[in-house]
Amino acid sequence: MRAVDLIRKKRDSGEHSREEIDFLISGYVRGTIPDYQMAAWLMAIWIRGMSRSELASLTEAMLYSGKVLNHAEIPGRKVDKHSTGGVGDKTSLILAPIVAAGGLTVPMISGRGLGHTGGTLDKLEAIPGFNTGLSLNEFGNVLRECGLALIGQTEEIAPADKKIYALRDATSTVENIGLICASIMSKKLAEGIDALVLDVKTGSGAFMKREEESLALAEVMVETGKRMGKKVVALITDMDQPLGRMAGHSCEIIECLDVLNGHGPDDLRQLSLELAAWMFYLGGRTKSVDEGRSLAETMISTGQAKEKFRHVIRLQGGDDRVVDEPHLLPMARLRSQIKNAAGGYITGTNCEQFGLALAMLGGGREKKEDKIDHSVGLEFHKRIGDRVEKGETLVTIHYNSDARLAEASSLIAASFQTGNEPPGSPRPLVRRILGA
Amino acid sequence: MRAVDLIRKKRDSGEHSREEIDFLISGYVRGTIPDYQMAAWLMAIWIRGMSRSELASLTEAMLYSGKVLNHAEIPGRKVDKHSTGGVGDKTSLILAPIVAAGGLTVPMISGRGLGHTGGTLDKLEAIPGFNTGLSLNEFGNVLRECGLALIGQTEEIAPADKKIYALRDATSTVENIGLICASIMSKKLAEGIDALVLDVKTGSGAFMKREEESLALAEVMVETGKRMGKKVVALITDMDQPLGRMAGHSCEIIECLDVLNGHGPDDLRQLSLELAAWMFYLGGRTKSVDEGRSLAETMISTGQAKEKFRHVIRLQGGDDRVVDEPHLLPMARLRSQIKNAAGGYITGTNCEQFGLALAMLGGGREKKEDKIDHSVGLEFHKRIGDRVEKGETLVTIHYNSDARLAEASSLIAASFQTGNEPPGSPRPLVRRILGA
Repeated sequence: MRAVDLIRKKRDSGEHSREEIDFLISGYVRGTIPDYQMAAWLMAIWIRGMSRSELASLTEAMLYSGKVLNHAEIPGRKVDKHSTGGVGDKTSLILAPIVAAGGLTVPMISGRGLGHTGGTLDKLEAIPGFNTGLSLNEFGNVLRECGLALIGQTEEIAPADKKIYALRDATSTVENIGLICASIMSKKLAEGIDALVLDVKTGSGAFMKREEESLALAEVMVETGKRMGKKVVALITDMDQPLGRMAGHSCEIIECLDVLNGHGPDDLRQLSLELAAWMFYLGGRTKSVDEGRSLAETMISTGQAKEKFRHVIRLQGGDDRVVDEPHLLPMARLRSQIKNAAGGYITGTNCEQFGLALAMLGGGREKKEDKIDHSVGLEFHKRIGDRVEKGETLVTIHYNSDARLAEASSLIAASFQTGNEPPGSPRPLVRRILGA
Repeated sequence: MRAVDLIRKKRDSGEHSREEIDFLISGYVRGTIPDYQMAAWLMAIWIRGMSRSELASLTEAMLYSGKVLNHAEIPGRKVDKHSTGGVGDKTSLILAPIVAAGGLTVPMISGRGLGHTGGTLDKLEAIPGFNTGLSLNEFGNVLRECGLALIGQTEEIAPADKKIYALRDATSTVENIGLICASIMSKKLAEGIDALVLDVKTGSGAFMKREEESLALAEVMVETGKRMGKKVVALITDMDQPLGRMAGHSCEIIECLDVLNGHGPDDLRQLSLELAAWMFYLGGRTKSVDEGRSLAETMISTGQAKEKFRHVIRLQGGDDRVVDEPHLLPMARLRSQIKNAAGGYITGTNCEQFGLALAMLGGGREKKEDKIDHSVGLEFHKRIGDRVEKGETLVTIHYNSDARLAEASSLIAASFQTGNEPPGSPRPLVRRILGA
């Protein structure tokens, strides 16, 4: 088998066998297939596409390029959730403690934020001392002890994805549903899970702005996961505005604690409960999703979820006093308010821009190497459909430096759409459920 | 400007500006754009195609990546011919002396054979001492002295093409009309010519087997050359069987000398005269192509073309006695004959296979590094349409080693198609003329 012949085959819209895909991926990881051949093949894949069976082969080849965890020594089902990312999307930090408290095991390997989106790892690192860089051994120990562990991708997990992703980034082959699916699923399935709930965001703050795209990605992820013997559902959820009231690392931890304390904004609480409910159901902990939702609510109302969160923070080296004393989190020194220029109704937002504004203030990365200021944040006072009076505050900015405040402020102000009439009835938070 | 954005643009079927193409090609030659980005871009080009204006920009960027010769100090027009290659295609060695003898300047930079095709450089090197590796200075000196010089591509000529071609070869992006056109035209226009005659082969012994493909390549080459201010015509010519009676290096030199002596096979003589006639016409030496043909015939009948060939051989260090004593060329020691198994008419050939059989005997390259045995050759006794009796000789093989004789023989024997009925009237040698 020669790489040049396989590139030609895909160039000419052929379909690869499992062996051909294994040859390409393992050769690339070993270094016998050079970057330039992989780049040409990725572009051919981007344009010509992949069949479902090719996609399953690619996902599997990437998955087995590294270590696939096995937690057989821990009784019960292992479940996880993956979100395609958005602004203020912090459900992982709520549902993971809920689900672990409810008796399932959640081996969560997460990513960092990039561009306009936040990342679970970065949020956790707002907690002083919290170590997201555990070895896989330490990860297993934490998991055994509290049913929940939260780390970043290690060198051992899906190395093919790491190498291919860097190449895709440099060759404009990122935005392809098949390649995105293989990248996500190879990493998630390496966690050693039995079931996976996918939160596929759609709207102006999501990577996939159009619902059809989100749906297409959700479909292939569900099918790929099922082909590999996992229980998988995907929820297509709204990202036309930030989730919850807060965006920014410390701010989001505080908001999660609010929810774990039985408060917090409706949308965030509801989506977290819904995702946790599906995890309970797919993990075989409850007989229905409704029962799962009740169990999730109980885990909050009894305080068990909050205690689980405290436990995992302590086990991973974090200062668990933050659970009761959130002011111990890094907080921004200054506040600035964005006010509404003319009264009316909020009819929509350009949600991605909020994420970019937050990054400008230091609360996100423009390049992978950038350091994050965990203390800065955006507090949203209004949602789509709300009536606002002239001069009323839309957003409070929590910041530390004036350097790019003006730029960020005008970006935020320009990202609200208002009108004299209220918008139609709001789109539901959960738009579609696939794979159920 | 960033390469990654330009790759995206072509991926999404966008059209590049001249500046964008310059940025990519100059960056690649300088090494600021890595192989993997160029590979992704080439695949996007292969699949999405190029507009005529993009193609002209690409050709120009590749042309100016290196030295563009200028023979302004030599009076009169500079003309050349390029062939896309085939089996027994030796017209360069006939028409170049004719055209130089007729008063135009022919600065011919040629290639080597690869796969089933022969290369002008390799044929010349059958002449003992002939140096095809002149520096560009020496090339200019020979050209000034005799109006004709014959060398190979140097490092200074179109380095972008050299680097891109190697990458295309490894990434299955060779067979694309736009990329082929840019590769050929950038090298040819670097010769500093005013006019170019293109011999685009079509048929079973050509790279482009189907006439539509040959036509499409011819069209873009003519248009690209014209956009760059050159006079260009393309002749689509037959390669359904070998040109002339001989294939192999010494054998072809001998056949060329036959034509220059006023003999030789009809097809070879006619095509050489036709191409020379177009060169005279485009070079402004004659008022019409017919007049050009007469001039070409005169250059042969008066012996001037042969003397020109002798002169250039001497100037380039070759043993010019071969012109009158062809046995001084390296000759194969042994002969073997391929006979016809059953009587009938020759209805066609799988011409490419003859070239591959010749390579097996040592008379061609299977890999770029292979050495060539100039003495081996194939002598064809029959042409399409000829009646052959059972047991009559089709081909005489001139060879030195038995090693692969059996394999080559059966390949040759299997590459003749015969039938009981004569084939229809033969297709004309020159099928189409474009750009006239």
